[in-house]
Amino acid sequence: MTKRRLESLSEDECLALLKQEHVGRIVYNDDTGPAAVPVNYAVAGQDIVFRSQDGSKMGALRDHHVGFEVDQVDTANRSGWSVLVRGTGKQVEIEHVPELLRRIDGEPPLPWKKGVHNIWVVITPQTITGRRLADLTFDEF
Amino acid sequence: MTKRRLESLSEDECLALLKQEHVGRIVYNDDTGPAAVPVNYAVAGQDIVFRSQDGSKMGALRDHHVGFEVDQVDTANRSGWSVLVRGTGKQVEIEHVPELLRRIDGEPPLPWKKGVHNIWVVITPQTITGRRLADLTFDEF
Repeated sequence: MTKRRLESLSEDECLALLKQEHVGRIVYNDDTGPAAVPVNYAVAGQDIVFRSQDGSKMGALRDHHVGFEVDQVDTANRSGWSVLVRGTGKQVEIEHVPELLRRIDGEPPLPWKKGVHNIWVVITPQTITGRRLADLTFDEF
Repeated sequence: MTKRRLESLSEDECLALLKQEHVGRIVYNDDTGPAAVPVNYAVAGQDIVFRSQDGSKMGALRDHHVGFEVDQVDTANRSGWSVLVRGTGKQVEIEHVPELLRRIDGEPPLPWKKGVHNIWVVITPQTITGRRLADLTFDEF
């Protein structure tokens, strides 16, 4: 077996990887503790943008530290990477959504739908870290 | 566009999905807040088993609620699912590892390596929930 290599990624590398993916996991705390659920997302500058259908869930994000995790694993080549954004989540007021859409690199996270349930959330990063594994053994937790 | 369907998965369905995958994300809190990192894992009964190379990281798990998230997204078919295990993490004493290995369904999360850095961690679930999306819009956070 070749020697396992675990390398840290630069912030620029992390951002490039974040921009190439479309599904990540919002990581937050609720009354039970830490949780993670996948969301469609986009990148605007360094910010992570996603939509929520449920405004009440914003309570779990507002004024709290949140995480956002994206990874990609290639089991055939035994390689993979993961990026962890840590920052704060904020609901974007509806009048600022057009400006947000202009800032997004590429496609917005989801097409607009009719109705009042379009809640846009931005995570502003405080840190963006990542790692790449040359041999797929994610045991460095 | 077809109507979006978001269905909850039963615990049995969640367990079957957990058993078919090999990489999930341990979700925990450290001093900065919630975080998630991928790990190789296996399932033993209803428990999630993975290895940690760094005993100091166990401080983030011990006596705390943790999460474990697994998902699979098929962008071509616009479908996907996610499972979230919520429970407590515990380090397994080395003398109990052989017993743990016998309980594991299928392959252990990683081959044994020489050295003292083989820390085995078990997450005992309190809840196992999941959802499946027929049309890939993970915007139900």
